Amino acid sequence: MRDSSLPDLGVGLIGTGFMGRAHAMAFHNARSTFELPVNLRLAALADADAARAEQCARAWGFDRSHAHWQQLINDPSVDLVAITTPNHLHFPMAMAALEAGKAVYCEKPLAVSLDQARQMQSAAKAAGVVTRVGYNYQHNPIIGLARQMIANGELGQIVSFQGEFSEDFMANAQSPWSWRCEPAHAGGALADLGSHLLAMARYLLGDVEAVCADSQTVHRQRPATQGGQEQRQIAIDDQTYALLRFANGARGTFASSWLKHGYKNHLSFEISGTKGTLAFDQERLNELQLYRAGAPGRDGFQRILAGPSQPGYAAFCPAPGHQLGYNELKTLEVHALIQALCGQGNEGPDFAEAMHIERLAAAIRIAAREMRWVTVSDI
Amino acid sequence: MRDSSLPDLGVGLIGTGFMGRAHAMAFHNARSTFELPVNLRLAALADADAARAEQCARAWGFDRSHAHWQQLINDPSVDLVAITTPNHLHFPMAMAALEAGKAVYCEKPLAVSLDQARQMQSAAKAAGVVTRVGYNYQHNPIIGLARQMIANGELGQIVSFQGEFSEDFMANAQSPWSWRCEPAHAGGALADLGSHLLAMARYLLGDVEAVCADSQTVHRQRPATQGGQEQRQIAIDDQTYALLRFANGARGTFASSWLKHGYKNHLSFEISGTKGTLAFDQERLNELQLYRAGAPGRDGFQRILAGPSQPGYAAFCPAPGHQLGYNELKTLEVHALIQALCGQGNEGPDFAEAMHIERLAAAIRIAAREMRWVTVSDI
Amino acid sequence: MRDSSLPDLGVGLIGTGFMGRAHAMAFHNARSTFELPVNLRLAALADADAARAEQCARAWGFDRSHAHWQQLINDPSVDLVAITTPNHLHFPMAMAALEAGKAVYCEKPLAVSLDQARQMQSAAKAAGVVTRVGYNYQHNPIIGLARQMIANGELGQIVSFQGEFSEDFMANAQSPWSWRCEPAHAGGALADLGSHLLAMARYLLGDVEAVCADSQTVHRQRPATQGGQEQRQIAIDDQTYALLRFANGARGTFASSWLKHGYKNHLSFEISGTKGTLAFDQERLNELQLYRAGAPGRDGFQRILAGPSQPGYAAFCPAPGHQLGYNELKTLEVHALIQALCGQGNEGPDFAEAMHIERLAAAIRIAAREMRWVTVSDI
Amino acid sequence: MRDSSLPDLGVGLIGTGFMGRAHAMAFHNARSTFELPVNLRLAALADADAARAEQCARAWGFDRSHAHWQQLINDPSVDLVAITTPNHLHFPMAMAALEAGKAVYCEKPLAVSLDQARQMQSAAKAAGVVTRVGYNYQHNPIIGLARQMIANGELGQIVSFQGEFSEDFMANAQSPWSWRCEPAHAGGALADLGSHLLAMARYLLGDVEAVCADSQTVHRQRPATQGGQEQRQIAIDDQTYALLRFANGARGTFASSWLKHGYKNHLSFEISGTKGTLAFDQERLNELQLYRAGAPGRDGFQRILAGPSQPGYAAFCPAPGHQLGYNELKTLEVHALIQALCGQGNEGPDFAEAMHIERLAAAIRIAAREMRWVTVSDI
Repeated sequence: MRDSSLPDLGVGLIGTGFMGRAHAMAFHNARSTFELPVNLRLAALADADAARAEQCARAWGFDRSHAHWQQLINDPSVDLVAITTPNHLHFPMAMAALEAGKAVYCEKPLAVSLDQARQMQSAAKAAGVVTRVGYNYQHNPIIGLARQMIANGELGQIVSFQGEFSEDFMANAQSPWSWRCEPAHAGGALADLGSHLLAMARYLLGDVEAVCADSQTVHRQRPATQGGQEQRQIAIDDQTYALLRFANGARGTFASSWLKHGYKNHLSFEISGTKGTLAFDQERLNELQLYRAGAPGRDGFQRILAGPSQPGYAAFCPAPGHQLGYNELKTLEVHALIQALCGQGNEGPDFAEAMHIERLAAAIRIAAREMRWVTVSDI
Repeated sequence: MRDSSLPDLGVGLIGTGFMGRAHAMAFHNARSTFELPVNLRLAALADADAARAEQCARAWGFDRSHAHWQQLINDPSVDLVAITTPNHLHFPMAMAALEAGKAVYCEKPLAVSLDQARQMQSAAKAAGVVTRVGYNYQHNPIIGLARQMIANGELGQIVSFQGEFSEDFMANAQSPWSWRCEPAHAGGALADLGSHLLAMARYLLGDVEAVCADSQTVHRQRPATQGGQEQRQIAIDDQTYALLRFANGARGTFASSWLKHGYKNHLSFEISGTKGTLAFDQERLNELQLYRAGAPGRDGFQRILAGPSQPGYAAFCPAPGHQLGYNELKTLEVHALIQALCGQGNEGPDFAEAMHIERLAAAIRIAAREMRWVTVSDI
Repeated sequence: MRDSSLPDLGVGLIGTGFMGRAHAMAFHNARSTFELPVNLRLAALADADAARAEQCARAWGFDRSHAHWQQLINDPSVDLVAITTPNHLHFPMAMAALEAGKAVYCEKPLAVSLDQARQMQSAAKAAGVVTRVGYNYQHNPIIGLARQMIANGELGQIVSFQGEFSEDFMANAQSPWSWRCEPAHAGGALADLGSHLLAMARYLLGDVEAVCADSQTVHRQRPATQGGQEQRQIAIDDQTYALLRFANGARGTFASSWLKHGYKNHLSFEISGTKGTLAFDQERLNELQLYRAGAPGRDGFQRILAGPSQPGYAAFCPAPGHQLGYNELKTLEVHALIQALCGQGNEGPDFAEAMHIERLAAAIRIAAREMRWVTVSDI
Repeated sequence: MRDSSLPDLGVGLIGTGFMGRAHAMAFHNARSTFELPVNLRLAALADADAARAEQCARAWGFDRSHAHWQQLINDPSVDLVAITTPNHLHFPMAMAALEAGKAVYCEKPLAVSLDQARQMQSAAKAAGVVTRVGYNYQHNPIIGLARQMIANGELGQIVSFQGEFSEDFMANAQSPWSWRCEPAHAGGALADLGSHLLAMARYLLGDVEAVCADSQTVHRQRPATQGGQEQRQIAIDDQTYALLRFANGARGTFASSWLKHGYKNHLSFEISGTKGTLAFDQERLNELQLYRAGAPGRDGFQRILAGPSQPGYAAFCPAPGHQLGYNELKTLEVHALIQALCGQGNEGPDFAEAMHIERLAAAIRIAAREMRWVTVSDI
């Protein structure tokens, strides 16, 4: 299947969990969905469990497997290193890959501390390679439409942003402890969910200048295991709320909670400008609500369905209303990354952008802890 | 039509604007809708324009008219004084009525300063009469249901509140100046719209302990008149956002804007507890969204329609889904007031409660001006 | 309160049930809401129960009461006879009122047989008086907007109509027998609910030329009383479905059921033309969904909120989004009737139009019974 | 990647259009998503255009290409023949494949005439192989939930079905002629869209006994090409409406139109039983609305989000609310087919079921043409 007129691109994937499989499928799908400017090969798969690495490599179509991630990074058939391991491993793996001069595609969050994130950004800059962080939701074609409308001035000057990312998977006090409850693993509602919303806010409206915030741990202990007797103390935020001031003058609110019953994937925002309003809720990821000031009695919020007029959609469905799924956003992310690797555009957050997202989250954390407004550029 | 076995209750109404007419209709409708424990008479109507007072008195069924509000207050046929004049007149009128020992039904906001509000509360307490302030939205039967569910513990322990009251009637930079733009008349998005939301938050969840906030004047000048050349400087808030900490432990956000295109009556809230979530949007005032944690694949937000099982609804419509309108909330407010006057229950905010609402708004104003957290009881 | 420059109009109301009270409130509200071109007096109220007649007359503000409806019709202070009694009494009462030369305002349905309806239409024509039948839903301002859009050609040539009126108050097999289950009282889903939809279809799109239909009695016996042992045989339709061919060329479907769980007031329609689509659901009576073919990626169904730009709305609420209730549609119906009585416009169905609605329902009944297409003008 | 402990399954795909690519992706994705009980190989791809066949085979990962579909059928590496060509070719291809003893996976509709469909059913039965027809929408996990609820009796005895499949891609009179406008290619709204709805109705409720219907060609000529001068006469239905009587006693309506502005993928249904109602709209394919009769004031339609508790969902997304897309329904269809080929279950319509769908569509066509009720088993 190799097209000799095209360069080869060998992908090395570290991690075989849910996100590892999602990456594998996304690379496959990018190949069957798009005319890629490379011969994309699934070169190597690494997992600390050698048997699992081998089994998944076979099932997912990788050429070979490694039990050590360092081997994968050093594997000469690997040009791009995709990292889908637990958060605290992003730093050593990405730094090693950058040192080896490989392009890096890292799952979010970039790191478990702002300091790590800054080192990763510097290393990426020094290496001069393409980097990418998996804030996949911004590759949704209808988000592309939203961004375009804002950039075009279709909403006028932007005045307000109200954003939320809430789910309810920790709403039950009996939901057990997991790594997501550990600060050292970038746990908590703000880091786990809220960072997606911060990425979205920056993608759509640019820099946030100042924040004030409030964080709370509602359930201060949780069972160590599902249904178990042992309890663990929890120090991480169950919910975080913030006020945001954007550099473009817009003001608004931020909310992130994993306690909010009824919400399963509620990354939502409302953005108003002097000419109109956009609203989005990721529980209906193929829809955008648009209001443009119009004639009395002939205006109202309009439900725009995702369709082929939006960037990326037509590769999957020929007609509007047929709907993309969560996994296809990942395919679009991979496609954008491959394009960037070939010098065709540069859509999607690199390590520098991901560092800015981490810095903004850090500012919110400080503002909440110290109960004061924080200027983001001060930290 | 007078039933000699019942006491008389004479209403004196001050003001003939939109809200004056709304009161007149509400008193009429209370009479035809409910079996009242009084002979309700529309005794007198006052307006500074004598001819208009006379004309409206005839059209709306009042026994007589006055050109001076002091005359109405002193009119012995008047037992209850209803005040629907511009905000800065609430104070002198209510104080005079209280001094005359009359019950007072005052439109919101109670006053144009916290100091006035405190004096009015004290005077009401001293007079020992029934007082009421027109936060009509909490008389919505489906809000009654929400309050009952929260009080019953159907949502568990309350964890979060996110509330917003936004409209778009000032979204256009060319929308002209009005008294609503003057601080001295209790103008601005926070006072005009936001105070309804604060009343609702208190009604449903009780005291707010501390706030942090951000206010902004986006359009710093507006035409003095529709389409006119003259410009006026504007100092009032176009949008205000806040973080709230409730005494019951809940945390959350507050938003109020009159710039938000597409919203016409968007008093909305989401309240989550450890067992479920309630959501409401006043643009669909006959609906409440309820989520209760349930079996996977059998749970989801449920759209509850207003119906006769909720307090007050059945007086208007015999079956669910037939819908109350804005004006009927006012009729319910009047009915609750008449009941209170007859010693039957005491639903609805009195001057003491309204003072608390004003104090909370004042705390938000200080927090925004001084960019710091404010403890509400400190002011 | 009488304005001597205006003529008097004396209303005589027969019936003191739910609908009687709704009429009384509507007359009151019409007086306080609108500048009427008459001195509207509530002259007399009749009920076969003299004590109830007297009590309601006092409570609702009528000058006097009668225990016999014939007395009310003959009462010289009565100019307009409003009939809100059980359906089988519409015929004798309306015929007597017409014979007395009085204007008649009759609740729907006009009669319990097509033959009666035809006699009533003839008598009305001979009497030369204003008649009106209470298909109140078409007085909804947002329905007025829908009609205007269709008439203006904003949807292009109309191609399809899909309409439904379903509720669930008989969905439970244990819901007891009532007069609504008797053919002789114009019972059944088609007559009770469906006739409103037929009225709406005619109001918006005009004549229906031919129908085919299917009717079913699902619960063939019901308890005689709530919770009782005695069972009654039921012969009336629980659900009726039909195909419609309109004179304007449109085709479509009709559905009416009182078994459809979850629906409380689901009078709904979708009307498509060559340029766009309108959709309405009476469970949200202040909203209309409009789609107009537009630029790809910028089009979508638009939620139009009822507002002052629509006929009638501004009399109740000054701003969009504040919402009318069910009872206000009745006030608008009464207002339109009073205008017609004063020679100002003629909005609303008269006896001739109501006869056409009955004929259409009769055609559906025949089509269902004989399982064949029926040309409406043939019967 | 071959697991020698598993049997091989070689897929031969005929057609390289949109649906051909959808099949190719679905086979790929089935392999990466599920633990398949076979070694699935993409053995051969056929297209009459040899160059295109070769190019697509390379891009989509097939072992080889054929320019003649007969070659593909005879290719010994092909065990399963997937047919995605224009409708009139389904018959000869499927018949040849059956004769060769191959399993057949044919896109809908099965054939362009009922007579062909019957021959195909007989041939399939004689061949004793697995057959499958691509009514992919019923593989939606939330449809699986609906079916389960109905089968479990959660809705009680089923009383009514109202279904519609409408889109608007031919709403514009200037939308040009295509093969979809030709009866000989199974064109028209009924065949193209409506057949999906008939499949769904049968999947959920079983046999339809009798139908009455109405079909209309609104635009009787269309341009031969986009924007061209030449006009072609059109004889196919633009919209078809029907009344349905199910064998289980339920009654209801059917609608299918490609003229209905605003609808892009509106396969929708409402199914009511004696205990509750289900509603679905494929424009939100991850949601199901459920109403179960409950306590007054605590009941209402509930929005159930697709999630891992439903069959198939968890293979794609680990949590509810993350949403499947259109293409993943195809992956689920392929997975079900592979399971059937391995003797594990038999979900999905085979040639016998597809013949019943065709017969039902034929009955609707006759009922519309002859304007009479048709008993489905009579034809």
